[in-house]
Amino acid sequence: MASPEIEALTQALARLPGLGPRSARRAVLHLLKKREAALGPLLSALTAVEERLTTCSVCGNVDTIDPCGVCADPRRDSRALCVVEEVADLWALDRSRLFPGRFHVLGGRLSALEGIRPEDLAIDSLVRRIEAGGIDEVVLAMNATLEGQTTAHYIAERIERFPIRVTQLAHGLPVGGELDYLDEGTLAQALRARRPVS
Amino acid sequence: MASPEIEALTQALARLPGLGPRSARRAVLHLLKKREAALGPLLSALTAVEERLTTCSVCGNVDTIDPCGVCADPRRDSRALCVVEEVADLWALDRSRLFPGRFHVLGGRLSALEGIRPEDLAIDSLVRRIEAGGIDEVVLAMNATLEGQTTAHYIAERIERFPIRVTQLAHGLPVGGELDYLDEGTLAQALRARRPVS
Repeated sequence: MASPEIEALTQALARLPGLGPRSARRAVLHLLKKREAALGPLLSALTAVEERLTTCSVCGNVDTIDPCGVCADPRRDSRALCVVEEVADLWALDRSRLFPGRFHVLGGRLSALEGIRPEDLAIDSLVRRIEAGGIDEVVLAMNATLEGQTTAHYIAERIERFPIRVTQLAHGLPVGGELDYLDEGTLAQALRARRPVS
Repeated sequence: MASPEIEALTQALARLPGLGPRSARRAVLHLLKKREAALGPLLSALTAVEERLTTCSVCGNVDTIDPCGVCADPRRDSRALCVVEEVADLWALDRSRLFPGRFHVLGGRLSALEGIRPEDLAIDSLVRRIEAGGIDEVVLAMNATLEGQTTAHYIAERIERFPIRVTQLAHGLPVGGELDYLDEGTLAQALRARRPVS
């Protein structure tokens, strides 16, 4: 029985990942009750992002500036390039602060099933970035899925003619992973890539 | 490394109940990727609510019209009045479509601990609504907490001089509740209010 405006807001929030109809309703109630403290800030933050949202013309990151904050950061090592499937992966790696270089977002992964071909991904622009020079290492940070690994192999072949180091993320036991609970694929990877005890 | 605008949006979303920093980031990424399908609708829904948001001068519900949609609905039985603590409770009862009457939102519960006294709640306006006449039954639908029940008793005393039926929600086993997992308080209530098998 809520008004159409409140109903529309509930539905828009319910479509966010992590929120269902129930939690969206709770969120709306929170916004209605905390008009000054919650609704106002969310509205202005959303407006600011909507107005300035853009895709980085260099790496494919989404940001409010172009080139994006990562590409524009002079402290980053421009000689190392980390290739990821999605913007979310870039953010996850960037949050960990473990990779000091720059990124390249493919915008997806090769998938015969979904009909996603190389020309649907930002692979040509990756090759052009490498061609332009100044890059020593390309880290292929695809997901450890069949499609992610297919994509990594395809890219590795496309760029093998360049005199650069091409690496990919290690596969194996996750930190805290208990053998008993891990899938066979992970166990197989961990066994295959076993190393001498140092 | 996200821009200040994106960071502000993430923080505004993370403050919603049900979303933490992690899921807020996922939600933001979703919004950034689905600019047309998600960001736009959410922004316009939020703007519409922000512009029109108001509190119902009759019952205390939040809505975009005053009197609210529930109070203005001519199909509702104006002789039955359900008193609830919060707008969320009104919405929950309204969703269930089990109560055909109107509502009255107290805006909280009496609490010695939090220093919430009768004059801090919409109790005087409730008494005035009953005084104005036309009401046969008042359902006290407070939470089954100590403070909720204190509030219900207080209100029952305040309105006992009116020739109306004052009822409260039944307490007992929730549907699907297993004795083994229920707290002693619920068991005690269920036992005390036991009924002959019909």
